[in-house]
Amino acid sequence: MQSFSYYIPVRLFFGKGELNRMATEKLPGKKAIIVTSGGTSMKKYGYLDRLTALLEKNNTAYVIFDKILPNPIKSHVMEGAALAKAEGCDFVIGLGGGSSIDSSKAIAVMATNEGDYWDYISGGSGKGQPIVNDPLPIIAITTTAGTGTEADPFTVTTKEETDEKIGFGCDKTFPYFSIIDPDLMMSVPPKLTAYQGFDALFHSTEGYIANIANPISDLFALKAIELIGKYLPQAVKDGSDAEARANVALANTLAGMVESTSSCTSEHSIEHAMSGYHPELPHGAGLIMVSLAYNSLFAQKVPERFVDMAKALGKTDAKEPMDFVTALHDLQKACGVDQLKMSDYGIKKEELDKIATHAKNIMGGLFDLDRYQMTHEDIVDVLEKSYR
Amino acid sequence: MQSFSYYIPVRLFFGKGELNRMATEKLPGKKAIIVTSGGTSMKKYGYLDRLTALLEKNNTAYVIFDKILPNPIKSHVMEGAALAKAEGCDFVIGLGGGSSIDSSKAIAVMATNEGDYWDYISGGSGKGQPIVNDPLPIIAITTTAGTGTEADPFTVTTKEETDEKIGFGCDKTFPYFSIIDPDLMMSVPPKLTAYQGFDALFHSTEGYIANIANPISDLFALKAIELIGKYLPQAVKDGSDAEARANVALANTLAGMVESTSSCTSEHSIEHAMSGYHPELPHGAGLIMVSLAYNSLFAQKVPERFVDMAKALGKTDAKEPMDFVTALHDLQKACGVDQLKMSDYGIKKEELDKIATHAKNIMGGLFDLDRYQMTHEDIVDVLEKSYR
Repeated sequence: MQSFSYYIPVRLFFGKGELNRMATEKLPGKKAIIVTSGGTSMKKYGYLDRLTALLEKNNTAYVIFDKILPNPIKSHVMEGAALAKAEGCDFVIGLGGGSSIDSSKAIAVMATNEGDYWDYISGGSGKGQPIVNDPLPIIAITTTAGTGTEADPFTVTTKEETDEKIGFGCDKTFPYFSIIDPDLMMSVPPKLTAYQGFDALFHSTEGYIANIANPISDLFALKAIELIGKYLPQAVKDGSDAEARANVALANTLAGMVESTSSCTSEHSIEHAMSGYHPELPHGAGLIMVSLAYNSLFAQKVPERFVDMAKALGKTDAKEPMDFVTALHDLQKACGVDQLKMSDYGIKKEELDKIATHAKNIMGGLFDLDRYQMTHEDIVDVLEKSYR
Repeated sequence: MQSFSYYIPVRLFFGKGELNRMATEKLPGKKAIIVTSGGTSMKKYGYLDRLTALLEKNNTAYVIFDKILPNPIKSHVMEGAALAKAEGCDFVIGLGGGSSIDSSKAIAVMATNEGDYWDYISGGSGKGQPIVNDPLPIIAITTTAGTGTEADPFTVTTKEETDEKIGFGCDKTFPYFSIIDPDLMMSVPPKLTAYQGFDALFHSTEGYIANIANPISDLFALKAIELIGKYLPQAVKDGSDAEARANVALANTLAGMVESTSSCTSEHSIEHAMSGYHPELPHGAGLIMVSLAYNSLFAQKVPERFVDMAKALGKTDAKEPMDFVTALHDLQKACGVDQLKMSDYGIKKEELDKIATHAKNIMGGLFDLDRYQMTHEDIVDVLEKSYR
């Protein structure tokens, strides 16, 4: 058995109605900056109003920063951090999907540290400096089931000038606590439910085939894969199905715990390069597009863990590594996402070589966690096979 | 799905040779009190010398408190805390089995808080006061696979004057980090290996049948049960089998994570009453003695989770709840612990009623976490059926 370490210091509150804790739970500060989406859903469904009312009950002040884009950008991180400083906020609440919570983490870092956010980013044009001061405490309130960010320390941001979409995270960017209240996920439309659910799935499958997988990350990963296989089609079909929503939410949190104990692999690097150049491409959709070709390659090169994943995904009679790819394709069909096209998002075939290069440039580290070392040609081949 | 929370902030370092980290890892203080057993094994096998040499390499001072008994007593907690205060220690290292690590937690509390340890104990004659000051940071280095204390906040101590053996724990008594190095477990003799392994098993089975079990504690519990079923007989038979030792160590750590996310049930209360009166009775042995009768009762009263446990324990064709009791009995035979007798430890049949009363008095809280509410007569009946 290989040595491994385990560290997930976040406190999770999981369940229907858990948002109400915000009125009673001891909070890590007196004035929050609420970081949330620039879209309308947090207001339309009343989540933002509920949160501010609960904070008022808890005698806690707040300011609202509601500009976050689906693919968060560095300038918003800097703007949010400036607001937090100017307003004297001493903790951050991320309310929304992965983009809002990720941004809350990056803002927490920049509210207490000098310079530019990219000074602290490793990879691409980042300077890779260590953060000097502890970030503000972060509370994550997730309204989607996709990134698992509520249970991991990671945040992904795009530097607009260079199309670099890069992750960051350290021990201090774990949320102080996270609320996973499936009631808040009922309003996610079917397509996004599917994209986000597949993102959670790939966090789990990549974490399972990464070369740093360990017995504890494996527990989380296989359970998340099982729950997504079992409940995602129903959550997509009927968003009001509370049982399906709760189980997909749980799968997503478990997938975040996989992130914290194992890692994504190069599949994520490839997608980040795609949506780095094409920010309108949802991350989960990009992953779905490359996943069959990517997993076919790995099932052939390093077959040993694929039968377990196929079984977890519901193919209980799985015998061959490629059975996982079949099960994955079946799940895509069941969720109505088997016909996604790169070309629909403006990706041109001529770009694929550039995307492959970009993948290694911006998130090359994840390639080191693969059990098989992809060549540039392998990446191009995966992209070409995935292209429609 | 019921609401649940999750909080296990300890950092775990698991694997062969991980003890060596003590020379390089950033420690949470400058001077340690090393809390270890009054027995000879930590010295005989060189573990204490290795630890102090590693601390010296790490430029860290230490004092040694080596008086801890197999069933730790309150007076040693108070004595250790007084030593830590007098010597200006700013963190605590527990080196040894559950007794040493548990004591390190209690000493960490009393090194920073006034009064008597029992002022802070809930249950029995404890005063149940909240602790005012943060305990000293705790490092746990486990040399046995039994209590899971390296992955939970709990500590069990006996108040000598009243034979009360009661647990304590809070968010602040999680270890800062824990080292689980199976190399340090090679020297545990067969009988203790079995007793400790069964203790870990019962942490998992009780956590699985407790009424606060949740999807994450279930993951840890079923895996721990599986690993113990698969590897404990071999670890008992051949203590030098590194694979068996590592897997039992992992099971034990997972069982500690069950403790942190679910709870023990009344089985533990009953045993604590037994070994509270008879401190020479090893905790794991006491649990083994009552386990068949206890689990038979619960398999009949609340059968729903027992087939899962039977399957996890290796009886893959299990269909009936009582199959778990059969599998448990088989495992006891395979580990050579199916013939333990209460009478060998001085327990008299006339005492059983008193033990049953004591169980509810000292650790009544665990009965509230049962899915079936045991009457006094039920407890006596379990004890009588277990008596030999």
